[in-house]
Amino acid sequence: MSSPVLISLDAMGGDHGPPVVVAGVRDYRKHHGGEGVRFLLHGDEAAIRAEMTRCGLTDQVCEIRHTDKVVGMDEKPAQAMRRGKGSSLWNAIEAVKAGEAAAVVSAGNTGALMAISKLLLRMSAPGLERPAIVASWPTLRGVTAVLDVGANVESDAEQLIEFAIMGAAFHGAVHAAAAPPSIGILNVGSEEMKGHEEVREANRILRERGEGLNLDYRGFVEGDDIAKGTVDVVVTDGFTGNIALKTAEGVARFISALMKEALTSSVSAKAGALLALPALKRMRQKIDPSTINGGPLLGLNGIVVKSHGGADAKGYGNAIRIAVELGRSDYLSKVKESFSRLGAVMEQPAPATEPTAMETSK
Amino acid sequence: MSSPVLISLDAMGGDHGPPVVVAGVRDYRKHHGGEGVRFLLHGDEAAIRAEMTRCGLTDQVCEIRHTDKVVGMDEKPAQAMRRGKGSSLWNAIEAVKAGEAAAVVSAGNTGALMAISKLLLRMSAPGLERPAIVASWPTLRGVTAVLDVGANVESDAEQLIEFAIMGAAFHGAVHAAAAPPSIGILNVGSEEMKGHEEVREANRILRERGEGLNLDYRGFVEGDDIAKGTVDVVVTDGFTGNIALKTAEGVARFISALMKEALTSSVSAKAGALLALPALKRMRQKIDPSTINGGPLLGLNGIVVKSHGGADAKGYGNAIRIAVELGRSDYLSKVKESFSRLGAVMEQPAPATEPTAMETSK
Repeated sequence: MSSPVLISLDAMGGDHGPPVVVAGVRDYRKHHGGEGVRFLLHGDEAAIRAEMTRCGLTDQVCEIRHTDKVVGMDEKPAQAMRRGKGSSLWNAIEAVKAGEAAAVVSAGNTGALMAISKLLLRMSAPGLERPAIVASWPTLRGVTAVLDVGANVESDAEQLIEFAIMGAAFHGAVHAAAAPPSIGILNVGSEEMKGHEEVREANRILRERGEGLNLDYRGFVEGDDIAKGTVDVVVTDGFTGNIALKTAEGVARFISALMKEALTSSVSAKAGALLALPALKRMRQKIDPSTINGGPLLGLNGIVVKSHGGADAKGYGNAIRIAVELGRSDYLSKVKESFSRLGAVMEQPAPATEPTAMETSK
Repeated sequence: MSSPVLISLDAMGGDHGPPVVVAGVRDYRKHHGGEGVRFLLHGDEAAIRAEMTRCGLTDQVCEIRHTDKVVGMDEKPAQAMRRGKGSSLWNAIEAVKAGEAAAVVSAGNTGALMAISKLLLRMSAPGLERPAIVASWPTLRGVTAVLDVGANVESDAEQLIEFAIMGAAFHGAVHAAAAPPSIGILNVGSEEMKGHEEVREANRILRERGEGLNLDYRGFVEGDDIAKGTVDVVVTDGFTGNIALKTAEGVARFISALMKEALTSSVSAKAGALLALPALKRMRQKIDPSTINGGPLLGLNGIVVKSHGGADAKGYGNAIRIAVELGRSDYLSKVKESFSRLGAVMEQPAPATEPTAMETSK
């Protein structure tokens, strides 16, 4: 279960740099085991060393790779690609490219992380222009993977199908390996004729050919199906996915603010809150962003996990957990195999008649 | 303040028909005054009469217009247009077309309501293909109008600008007449170069020409800005808007379910919940769908308000409130004036240089 694995970390990335990254390693080891997991920390040696001492981490667990160079949080992707060579971000990704590390985690500049990852690792499918970011969304039934949540502003049918393949492999590797993950495409209704051309075509192809791709495709789902956990993987373009994710974050914060206001509005409400505190705390944990932090960039020939720039040690530790689980899984080979099968499946002639196709896909 | 106004109701529409529609009238009168407001109720006379008796409503307030014919909740729009003449839905809209009623409310089949409204009332702008549905979204600062939330799956820049005009007129008429409403376009980031072509072009035009249209345009907003109440009006295409709205509903229900679970998980949590009950109730009211029920169909030459099919009397009463406020306001003439100004503004040559345009729009 716990084969040795090496994770590459951009120690300078994020709003806080080494204090959060190194404390994130400690938090990961404390809460998620960490047996057989070692780390390469790229960045300022003195700063990293100081944090390692503070966190009680030895050179056996954390190996420092010094560099003075850092990609700024507001550098444009093109600029970061030109000037970024030798930076902590660049070197952290290069360790994956060289086959030294199984995965890289960075809380740094998202645009730069995507651009340099794409440059060094290359995309794993011809249809993909940019990596897709996947979010792990807490639901009534567990965790649903939603992708793309931000990278690909417009996505054609083939890209949506690639998202389905990558999302299913991700969900299987990280969230629930038991059953093949169920998949839905996000739309404004569940009827076949709803939505724009791209989602309708992707729906038609997955209905007709999903079985040949080993995908458990269930059809269209709507916005409220995400939090219901109707399916394990929700596929959408990066524009819609990003807006859905941020809208959800806004609503969660809005309700939290209302709840705080309500539970401090009177003496009896305050007393009630005090009594209910342990239960409310457990509830908050389920929607705490840090328990779901860590969005893999899928579609690259290597595992890259983006941590939120403002994540705390607990959140960073969770991003490490996702990187370790993906790094130890057969995610990459599974995706590669599915992509090669996709080519073959797409080249087959379409099933003879629509009704037959619909019947067999049920 | 309370000029006499006549509201036309499709008494047979919705999951419940007359029991909810008539009780909705009573609820509206109880909670929102209703001085000077009279109703035309279209549908089965006996059923409506029975509910009026039950609710203590007289013929002075409610005038019944009998019809046996009803548009089914699952009839296709084309079918409803062909076969719907003389139905309660059709007659309710026709009363607005004839200038008899100031607005119509229906909890019936959305597709049929849109199609028949468009057929009888016509669109008020050439760029609009279908009416836009506007949602009133509770936020930390009040209520934000979000449109389109479902009718127009794809929207070009000019449509988005029309949504901005209609949304601002709606927000001013119903939610806050004092200051001109601030407007933002929903996007994946706030930088000018983010998003797809349609939102970038609409943003550029509103930046350059928003003042000429009397619009307080603030630029791009992100998903979490909706619940924050960053702007009064959030403009988006119907695909994204529908998914954002339903995603938000799903998240709100998810958090409610977690809260219920938490507050019944132990004896002390239950005791705490009991103490905090009045405060929690006030909080729930703010996110209760029935307190925000009622989505006007904008872009028609007449006021049409869609109530949720499953709304209760309180929710239906709120949809009536929105219809009354829009019906009494200068919403229609304001939109008409802005649309005619839009033509003139769009025909003017673009400002000389981009930088100048950007500077003056700040």
